[in-house]
Amino acid sequence: MAKKENNANFSRLLRKIKSKPLERELGFGKNLALDARLMNSDGSFNVERERISPWDNIYYHLISMPWRHFLALIFGFFLLLNIFFSSLYLLIGVEHFNGVQLGDTLHNFMQAFFFSSQTLTTVGYGHISPNGFVISILASVESFFGLLAFALMTGLLYGRFSRPSARIFFSDHMLVAPYRDGQGLMFRMANTSKSELIETEVQLLLVINQREENGALSRKFYPLNLEISKISFFSLSWTVVHALNDQSPIQHFSSQDLIDGNVEVLVLVKGTDETTQQQVHTRRSYVATDIVWNARFSPIVDQTAKGVPRLITKKIDQHDLLQD
Amino acid sequence: MAKKENNANFSRLLRKIKSKPLERELGFGKNLALDARLMNSDGSFNVERERISPWDNIYYHLISMPWRHFLALIFGFFLLLNIFFSSLYLLIGVEHFNGVQLGDTLHNFMQAFFFSSQTLTTVGYGHISPNGFVISILASVESFFGLLAFALMTGLLYGRFSRPSARIFFSDHMLVAPYRDGQGLMFRMANTSKSELIETEVQLLLVINQREENGALSRKFYPLNLEISKISFFSLSWTVVHALNDQSPIQHFSSQDLIDGNVEVLVLVKGTDETTQQQVHTRRSYVATDIVWNARFSPIVDQTAKGVPRLITKKIDQHDLLQD
Amino acid sequence: MAKKENNANFSRLLRKIKSKPLERELGFGKNLALDARLMNSDGSFNVERERISPWDNIYYHLISMPWRHFLALIFGFFLLLNIFFSSLYLLIGVEHFNGVQLGDTLHNFMQAFFFSSQTLTTVGYGHISPNGFVISILASVESFFGLLAFALMTGLLYGRFSRPSARIFFSDHMLVAPYRDGQGLMFRMANTSKSELIETEVQLLLVINQREENGALSRKFYPLNLEISKISFFSLSWTVVHALNDQSPIQHFSSQDLIDGNVEVLVLVKGTDETTQQQVHTRRSYVATDIVWNARFSPIVDQTAKGVPRLITKKIDQHDLLQD
Amino acid sequence: MAKKENNANFSRLLRKIKSKPLERELGFGKNLALDARLMNSDGSFNVERERISPWDNIYYHLISMPWRHFLALIFGFFLLLNIFFSSLYLLIGVEHFNGVQLGDTLHNFMQAFFFSSQTLTTVGYGHISPNGFVISILASVESFFGLLAFALMTGLLYGRFSRPSARIFFSDHMLVAPYRDGQGLMFRMANTSKSELIETEVQLLLVINQREENGALSRKFYPLNLEISKISFFSLSWTVVHALNDQSPIQHFSSQDLIDGNVEVLVLVKGTDETTQQQVHTRRSYVATDIVWNARFSPIVDQTAKGVPRLITKKIDQHDLLQD
Repeated sequence: MAKKENNANFSRLLRKIKSKPLERELGFGKNLALDARLMNSDGSFNVERERISPWDNIYYHLISMPWRHFLALIFGFFLLLNIFFSSLYLLIGVEHFNGVQLGDTLHNFMQAFFFSSQTLTTVGYGHISPNGFVISILASVESFFGLLAFALMTGLLYGRFSRPSARIFFSDHMLVAPYRDGQGLMFRMANTSKSELIETEVQLLLVINQREENGALSRKFYPLNLEISKISFFSLSWTVVHALNDQSPIQHFSSQDLIDGNVEVLVLVKGTDETTQQQVHTRRSYVATDIVWNARFSPIVDQTAKGVPRLITKKIDQHDLLQD
Repeated sequence: MAKKENNANFSRLLRKIKSKPLERELGFGKNLALDARLMNSDGSFNVERERISPWDNIYYHLISMPWRHFLALIFGFFLLLNIFFSSLYLLIGVEHFNGVQLGDTLHNFMQAFFFSSQTLTTVGYGHISPNGFVISILASVESFFGLLAFALMTGLLYGRFSRPSARIFFSDHMLVAPYRDGQGLMFRMANTSKSELIETEVQLLLVINQREENGALSRKFYPLNLEISKISFFSLSWTVVHALNDQSPIQHFSSQDLIDGNVEVLVLVKGTDETTQQQVHTRRSYVATDIVWNARFSPIVDQTAKGVPRLITKKIDQHDLLQD
Repeated sequence: MAKKENNANFSRLLRKIKSKPLERELGFGKNLALDARLMNSDGSFNVERERISPWDNIYYHLISMPWRHFLALIFGFFLLLNIFFSSLYLLIGVEHFNGVQLGDTLHNFMQAFFFSSQTLTTVGYGHISPNGFVISILASVESFFGLLAFALMTGLLYGRFSRPSARIFFSDHMLVAPYRDGQGLMFRMANTSKSELIETEVQLLLVINQREENGALSRKFYPLNLEISKISFFSLSWTVVHALNDQSPIQHFSSQDLIDGNVEVLVLVKGTDETTQQQVHTRRSYVATDIVWNARFSPIVDQTAKGVPRLITKKIDQHDLLQD
Repeated sequence: MAKKENNANFSRLLRKIKSKPLERELGFGKNLALDARLMNSDGSFNVERERISPWDNIYYHLISMPWRHFLALIFGFFLLLNIFFSSLYLLIGVEHFNGVQLGDTLHNFMQAFFFSSQTLTTVGYGHISPNGFVISILASVESFFGLLAFALMTGLLYGRFSRPSARIFFSDHMLVAPYRDGQGLMFRMANTSKSELIETEVQLLLVINQREENGALSRKFYPLNLEISKISFFSLSWTVVHALNDQSPIQHFSSQDLIDGNVEVLVLVKGTDETTQQQVHTRRSYVATDIVWNARFSPIVDQTAKGVPRLITKKIDQHDLLQD
């Protein structure tokens, strides 16, 4: 690894940081990997947790899996439930149904399957109907559990649909751009939702490899001050700026310094979604190689013919390199 | 435009503001239109966002569109789903239904349509019933998706119905009225909901065109101090007052000054709705021409025969012009 | 009224208050009744609001009306919907139904009614079924609206059932009891819910008639300091104490003084319900005649045989008068 | 009890505490048992509340009872409702059903039962159908109440499923371990949920028996300072440390001192669950005998082959005794 070979360079770099790292524990344990990134670029943490039981976190998985997986899963579950009950009907004997013409096993199974699906969904056409004690009881039980199963499925469906989420687009890169009399480390966010985001707050955390007094490398956390860290409403776009002045722990760092320190910048955004009136959180992470030096973001907001500001989301990452 | 012709006047006006504008970014980008209003009077922002995908923000649209649109939409969706499945049944052949007398295509389609709607809604009378492998499978699939579709529709229906919202009426005008030893800029709000609004907070932001050092005009934001900015409960009415004293950025401004600066006052209200115990936000915007000078609000609360205070909402904007 | 006859006494009383009343507006307007109470003892405000439209606040009414009213209402609505659709079926002609034996109008209406209710609830036995174009369309429409109507009804049912509420019992009286070296004004609350109430906060506001400089009487608000105003968890009972020391606006007031000033003490409680993890608010109001002088609350918590503290809710107001 | 025999020792111990106990009431009443623990180790309070009415807290019970109880309860309720309506049908006479072959009472009852369950679940096959005025009315009523009952059941089912909860594992023991130049009292928490916990805060409260000035023993509360009490995200594990320095009320206490004082440490955790974006609370309690002296927690986070930190939840309580 580059940074291990550049020890002299790296020690030099770390002497440059004058501010104190955060004392507070961040929930990752002490022995953080020096090479791996802490947070994936989509804001999920790059960690693993041993599964305690298969039922653990099942709600989390069902609510956050991609839509196509979810729809496949519930359709599969519907099929399985039907197959399960159909098999029971077949065992009892489909001759206990009214309206079924007996045939081979597959034919009988399909009849049971159709009856089962009509029972689970509570359609109940009735051209097939239970006729006999055991089969009537089973149909009654199936309709009961069918209602509960659909309740869960439909609850999840709507839960997923209405889940509050901050639909924030982040620029792919951070820029080091001219800012006031010096430079600033900046990235850009855009609110792509029709719903306003109110009282939006941003926090930035720098993660960097640093040498302890005992000579061991470890990852340290530094808060990065923001010029503006809270806005009343986040309607279109927001360029978040950390000024590289003498309050900054990385004031005179070069691009290579940041790479040597395996720098990662964690972005934490919090706000209130107006439609659901709920608080939403979102996260993003940038690593050293995501930082572009001496560049400036192009405008992302233009005006319509009527003079109304218009957000052009696809320009979120557009930036121009500056001549030195 | 008047304000471009009155440049001398306008520069004079801007020299009058002694306080510093807000540094914080407000999420509108930098190049705000000097002429357009920022917020519509109903509190929605006067901005546009490029649509990323047609599915984007679909929940937002469904939950916030007018009721008549919503009902038309879901009825249309129900019709379309039925037509889609009916066409499939027609393709397979309605002769695979029990209980259908064959006729011309329209007749057959209608039979398929009725069967389809009885399946989607899970009514399933059964006088028409599927008879055959393919058609039974399709009916099973339809009832499954029918349940999911109704789950979404009914979830949205209740979600719309129970959505927390601050039902606040604002006066149509702001008044410049006598206040203490001087004058105050004031507007009035009334809580028309039966549900109390608890811990209600108001913020006021002034937006004004101002000349930068480089001579360019740009829109600046100033917070306007309030005599009272938070109340424990907002039961009937509240007259919100910004004193035009020496803390005010617009202390000695005339009516024409405000128009020249294309002034807009943004009102942000936040509170807790007691029925749903959720936080609600609402907004309002006043422009320079909404301000009435030298007027006083008429009482909006009278008393019933039993001495109980009574809010007369329709008087919310009633005010009397004062003799100078 | 006693207090109008006792003007001398009353003026004396008001000179006694040294602290400044609250400047902040409380949302009741300015012309509060001097005689009426501001808040009913159940915490609802004693105010009226002109109704804007019959649909206004309909969710609030449906969610907060008593259960027996709600159940009667939705059953009535179900009946009305059925009668409406039955009448339409009757108009079209019940001869268009399969499975109906024609009879007199009442008989026919009842057949239509039964069909309608089987359609609305999506039971759809099918012994009566639509046979004909118009009647099939109508049945299809009914089942669609039936599903939506039941969605609203059942959403409301569960919404009512699961609505977060602080189930706090208040003592019927406030006591003036010995406290430290002097006296305190106190009342008692008990958490009767199985669910803990976390981070519970209490605010007390005194409302009193006071003579303005111009001689007019008006109602003024004073906050009452509490020895403890926030607790981490509110598990069993809490005796809330306002010390009648020199920070109190009513330090040397007699019982008659409080009656003369038509005193009302507003209690505002806020906490987080653990089961729903939502914030809940509740209120209570005491008037001068609810105050018992020289008394002490009896214990409300005893211990079970195993030494476990036990709340005896019915003792919430039990107090002993003290010998002078 | 040991502590009553060790009065001399105990008084010595209590003189050691220099900090002032919390004035604030904690909602348990004044006469706390000296011997019983205040909070069970699962975080529920060790208290009892007299039941006011059987309907009291029914939502709480239904939402928090174990799953197997809940499922048994709703299945039992479904059975009971069916038996209730079946009995009514039997009373009216099953000869009023179409499609029923009459038999002995049990046979008739079962037919009524099957019809009832098909009505409650709205399956409505229709091979049995009501034929007659009274029985049709009853079926109509049953389907109405069936829909409402299922609405409640399914609402509860989904409410239970989606209830926000902090899935935090706590170590079984607290350790007194080397910390900085001295020692610290510490325990460990792990977030076992896939969902991140954001802005997590911890509060520690010490409960200890202490002798009042009048000689009586009573339980007192002391806050315990934490080195870090809030973290931005709680991703894997967190070792919470109370330094046993001169700010600590129990600085020089021995193991026996803590047992003599019947010490209990209450842990209150609060955070925001990312999936539901709701605030969640959880609690834990440790008693004196849960404290292990001179031990150190073993690492709970290792790394996968790819260098990703991995939480091994089952090691949550693993610790090594230290040689003195």
